[in-house]
Amino acid sequence: MADKLKVGIIGIGAIGAIHADAYRATGEADLVAICDVNADRLASEGERLGVKHRLSDYRDLLKVDVDAVSVCVGNALHREVAIASLEAGKHVLLEKPMALNATEAVDIQATAEKSSGVLQIAMCRRQQPQSQVLRDYIAKGLLGEIYHMRAVLVRRRGIPGLGGWFTTKALSGGGPMIDLGVHWFDLSMWLSGHWNPTSVSARTYAKFGPKMADYTYVSMWAGPPKFDGTCDVEDYSTGFVRFGEKATMSFEIAWAANTETESFVEVLGDKGGARLFAGDLRIYTEQNGRLVDVEPKFDESANHYEVQAQKFIAACRGEREPAATGSQGVTVMKLIDAIYASSNAGAEVEIK
Amino acid sequence: MADKLKVGIIGIGAIGAIHADAYRATGEADLVAICDVNADRLASEGERLGVKHRLSDYRDLLKVDVDAVSVCVGNALHREVAIASLEAGKHVLLEKPMALNATEAVDIQATAEKSSGVLQIAMCRRQQPQSQVLRDYIAKGLLGEIYHMRAVLVRRRGIPGLGGWFTTKALSGGGPMIDLGVHWFDLSMWLSGHWNPTSVSARTYAKFGPKMADYTYVSMWAGPPKFDGTCDVEDYSTGFVRFGEKATMSFEIAWAANTETESFVEVLGDKGGARLFAGDLRIYTEQNGRLVDVEPKFDESANHYEVQAQKFIAACRGEREPAATGSQGVTVMKLIDAIYASSNAGAEVEIK
Amino acid sequence: MADKLKVGIIGIGAIGAIHADAYRATGEADLVAICDVNADRLASEGERLGVKHRLSDYRDLLKVDVDAVSVCVGNALHREVAIASLEAGKHVLLEKPMALNATEAVDIQATAEKSSGVLQIAMCRRQQPQSQVLRDYIAKGLLGEIYHMRAVLVRRRGIPGLGGWFTTKALSGGGPMIDLGVHWFDLSMWLSGHWNPTSVSARTYAKFGPKMADYTYVSMWAGPPKFDGTCDVEDYSTGFVRFGEKATMSFEIAWAANTETESFVEVLGDKGGARLFAGDLRIYTEQNGRLVDVEPKFDESANHYEVQAQKFIAACRGEREPAATGSQGVTVMKLIDAIYASSNAGAEVEIK
Amino acid sequence: MADKLKVGIIGIGAIGAIHADAYRATGEADLVAICDVNADRLASEGERLGVKHRLSDYRDLLKVDVDAVSVCVGNALHREVAIASLEAGKHVLLEKPMALNATEAVDIQATAEKSSGVLQIAMCRRQQPQSQVLRDYIAKGLLGEIYHMRAVLVRRRGIPGLGGWFTTKALSGGGPMIDLGVHWFDLSMWLSGHWNPTSVSARTYAKFGPKMADYTYVSMWAGPPKFDGTCDVEDYSTGFVRFGEKATMSFEIAWAANTETESFVEVLGDKGGARLFAGDLRIYTEQNGRLVDVEPKFDESANHYEVQAQKFIAACRGEREPAATGSQGVTVMKLIDAIYASSNAGAEVEIK
Repeated sequence: MADKLKVGIIGIGAIGAIHADAYRATGEADLVAICDVNADRLASEGERLGVKHRLSDYRDLLKVDVDAVSVCVGNALHREVAIASLEAGKHVLLEKPMALNATEAVDIQATAEKSSGVLQIAMCRRQQPQSQVLRDYIAKGLLGEIYHMRAVLVRRRGIPGLGGWFTTKALSGGGPMIDLGVHWFDLSMWLSGHWNPTSVSARTYAKFGPKMADYTYVSMWAGPPKFDGTCDVEDYSTGFVRFGEKATMSFEIAWAANTETESFVEVLGDKGGARLFAGDLRIYTEQNGRLVDVEPKFDESANHYEVQAQKFIAACRGEREPAATGSQGVTVMKLIDAIYASSNAGAEVEIK
Repeated sequence: MADKLKVGIIGIGAIGAIHADAYRATGEADLVAICDVNADRLASEGERLGVKHRLSDYRDLLKVDVDAVSVCVGNALHREVAIASLEAGKHVLLEKPMALNATEAVDIQATAEKSSGVLQIAMCRRQQPQSQVLRDYIAKGLLGEIYHMRAVLVRRRGIPGLGGWFTTKALSGGGPMIDLGVHWFDLSMWLSGHWNPTSVSARTYAKFGPKMADYTYVSMWAGPPKFDGTCDVEDYSTGFVRFGEKATMSFEIAWAANTETESFVEVLGDKGGARLFAGDLRIYTEQNGRLVDVEPKFDESANHYEVQAQKFIAACRGEREPAATGSQGVTVMKLIDAIYASSNAGAEVEIK
Repeated sequence: MADKLKVGIIGIGAIGAIHADAYRATGEADLVAICDVNADRLASEGERLGVKHRLSDYRDLLKVDVDAVSVCVGNALHREVAIASLEAGKHVLLEKPMALNATEAVDIQATAEKSSGVLQIAMCRRQQPQSQVLRDYIAKGLLGEIYHMRAVLVRRRGIPGLGGWFTTKALSGGGPMIDLGVHWFDLSMWLSGHWNPTSVSARTYAKFGPKMADYTYVSMWAGPPKFDGTCDVEDYSTGFVRFGEKATMSFEIAWAANTETESFVEVLGDKGGARLFAGDLRIYTEQNGRLVDVEPKFDESANHYEVQAQKFIAACRGEREPAATGSQGVTVMKLIDAIYASSNAGAEVEIK
Repeated sequence: MADKLKVGIIGIGAIGAIHADAYRATGEADLVAICDVNADRLASEGERLGVKHRLSDYRDLLKVDVDAVSVCVGNALHREVAIASLEAGKHVLLEKPMALNATEAVDIQATAEKSSGVLQIAMCRRQQPQSQVLRDYIAKGLLGEIYHMRAVLVRRRGIPGLGGWFTTKALSGGGPMIDLGVHWFDLSMWLSGHWNPTSVSARTYAKFGPKMADYTYVSMWAGPPKFDGTCDVEDYSTGFVRFGEKATMSFEIAWAANTETESFVEVLGDKGGARLFAGDLRIYTEQNGRLVDVEPKFDESANHYEVQAQKFIAACRGEREPAATGSQGVTVMKLIDAIYASSNAGAEVEIK
């Protein structure tokens, strides 16, 4: 049995705590250091987790004897912290979005390529059992050639923390595309194997967020609203992506819209197709010469964060590739940048 | 009570017979002439309907004393027959698609503008009760400003008459966009009031039709397949349309795809939204300060062809505008032409 | 190739016309006689079908040289006409319900047993492709032992011909149980193989029909309402049936209720289960050690009346058993009688 | 502002911890004592909650200065602990099921009637916002007279802790009826106001649990299975209940069945009806002379345990009645006892 990996977590908020629990659940890592600027949270989580090193400055954490770090700080700090960690020789599991934009993402990836550390992006949705089963189906050719994808994630009312950092572009990088779309775009490309988006025509809207006082909702993650805060990000995004000659993707990604809450990634192949929902998978295919739909059943309690952590640990040990690479993360961020650019231009733009 | 309108029907196949029954149901029209190249059909329908003039050449029908004609011939003859009818001073109810392409549609509309006749396009879906109720909602401002539409009409397996005229571009003008998309695009623009599509980025695919022998299906309208016939039209079409600065539309229109059969037109407004299904309407709005969905119930047996005929008769009498104008029909055809052009170019194209 | 069967149809209304078309579609029967008390319908259908003998009295039809008859008269005449036909040596395809009640049904079956004719009850739903596929599944043991069935057929608003014969017990025998329930009960027992209902506790309600003027609806089959007519039948029926020690069935059968329109027969087995919907089949089972749902796709345009006619013709020729026997029809009627009795008694009743 | 209520919690497992958090969230209670036989859990929860008195014997807790206790021990101890608490003069919030059976429930209620303490049963589902909104609708007469209820809660695979206390009748009292049915039966009677079940005909099955090794599942609450343990409870329960002359209820309650996972309580009234789902409410009614479905939207993050605690605290202060009375709890248990009795007898039984 290999020695346990010594890990630290930079940023021990809600998502950082999930990383901590995931590492522990693997039984293959020792959490030896955590870091946060919020002293109360640092203390309570340090207590709960029984962590030795509890630090307020991430630069101090990087001096501790850890092999790897999870970077779970605010989006606006991803670039700085990820680069510093890689330069310090640490393996990095970097939370999503990879960065505020593609320029930053490219910087991180360039650093990773020069460093000895592994960089894995926290595309945890890939680790859900239904995603893995579908990926296997496609890899075996059972759906044939994938030619079109649909990425639909629309919430009736789901703006998080209206007026706070989520809705402040300088802090978040953007709205639902940054918060949710990164997963859906990543899944579409990872499932289909089409990693070469070449152009996009798109439009973003902000119809609900800016009129804060009129926003009717039933619940708010990271709420309540800060009516004196900022909302300068989109709440709806829609468009059409080409992957060279081979494939296309259409998308609807929204925090707020007057319609059904709906969520799926669809892949269309010439032999079969599938819809991957938040908790279900439906495959459209043929059995015994008859058209059938097949819905495999999955353990909804399976923890994809734990699987993500296991694969990261294995990658740090050189036993496998990272479960989601920095290069793929760069592609997702370039796509999102291009969507914003196309919306501003009112025209299709190329992706380089 | 006004005299009954004297009407003729050119092309008395399945859709022509529906027009005949619809005119009769209104009680305001006398069907005095029908025309078809198929002698058996002409005889049996003439008998069933008790029509005086039964003609094999539409030019003879235009010499009969009729005020108005329904043009229900094959798509490839729409231009010729509609123009001849208008030039003969007849009012024209023209079946969809308006023509094989926008060039032909423009010719028809130009003729209509010079003639004394009324031209109404048979956009019968507008006359369904759920469509009318939703249009009223929007016209009263209850959904606010409409900024995005989604036109989704996807069939798992629904290629009609594979190998026959439906799948032969020279005869049909195209695939599901011509067969079904015309309704969905028309509804999207008519409901929203956005009649100015300015650009489109799109892609069409033909993954099922060309491999005729491998096409697994459960039933076929206008079947069985003619394996020695032609299939040179798309079976899937997807893309993104801009309406100047104000609005956008995304669409998925398919005869065949490995996915859910699904059909709706969605309109998103800043006060409310709606999905118009084949037989249902769902409105997403607020009542008493609470978010609610409302589903009005409708008479599914209501006959929208009869309502269409009534409005056409009233327009012929000068009592109202046509229920769907030639100008609107031209816009739909320009959009479809642009979709094909964008797919061929692999890039966004402007619509003039 | 065998000679064609010579058939007659007694009662040539909507359902009689369907039988006529079904016989013709088989290519194995000659329709030589029809009968109806409505002279206009007799003439127009006689013309349409090109039938030689057009008679107003069914006793005259039974003197014609026909091998078999379809009995498609009003429910209240089923007993008389079916018995006379069997006594005349004819094979009988008897529309549903078998009779007004079990006493009448027993009389018919007793006559059939003494006669040389075949008696088949028109349980046409069994002939839908999804029903046949499911029956095969169960017969092969793939669902294991069936221990519970659910028969759910609930319409939001679907009272047919309010105030007319449908809602007049003396003419119809009852409400939705007689109109629709006969199919659902028959399917439940035929699919599961449990043909021994031993007791039932049930209740019927009439909450909508009797208050005719207040009945809000969106469409009405066999309408419009006759406000001076009769409604003395149930509009909702619910209860619980035991099949000895082995199985049970619960049911909800309604023409009108303030709820979802819903329709399925469910069978629960210890190895698998299924829901048979009006047009779909969903099987709940295991594949490769994983729980899956499977939805086979079917030709929705397949005509189960034609299949029914084919099987009836084959039974008349002695090539197979009738597709639904009189004995099974008696069991269905005994069950319905017992449901009414239990509702009146306010207690469970035994079925003999 | 009133003084805070001093509360204790007997049994600080998963549900006891929820009670603790709920009391704290109200801001109107001080949690001063907890009790558990598991020393580790007692220590960790005591630490987490900062509770002064941490006791291993509930009799010691009852000697502490607390006004009220939550009884969250195993089902088999409900009777003993609730009675002792009431006799010690404490108010009692008693977790569901009220007891192992009606005999025990009657004992508890008799003690409550003699004591000075308030007894509230933890029917927390009533406190969900959708339940409250529907109850208000019905109380205002908007649905008219409620005549039928359907209680449907069926899980494809959901046996909890197979082989453990959940599936051991001596410890749990029964299977899914005790675990889940108590909520659905309570909601049906509370929403409709029909609290007089008079007879039931029912059947229970155990098709999955007893064959432990063959039980295929995707996840298990309180798992993994103990293959050397006991399973002597039902996994499916179905039947039909009469409420005198006025109303009926049908039910399907299951931990395991080869069918759709489905969950709702339906109430049918002559003016309107409704389905209450786990997280949604759908009302079937009329607006402006038109049939409509209305789906109000709710805050899914609202905490019904907190509302339950608030109402319990208010009842302890004499400001209101308990949110669910012991008398109602007894009725639920009598119904469940009768269901088991009917299943054993193979016949309908009366409920006294």
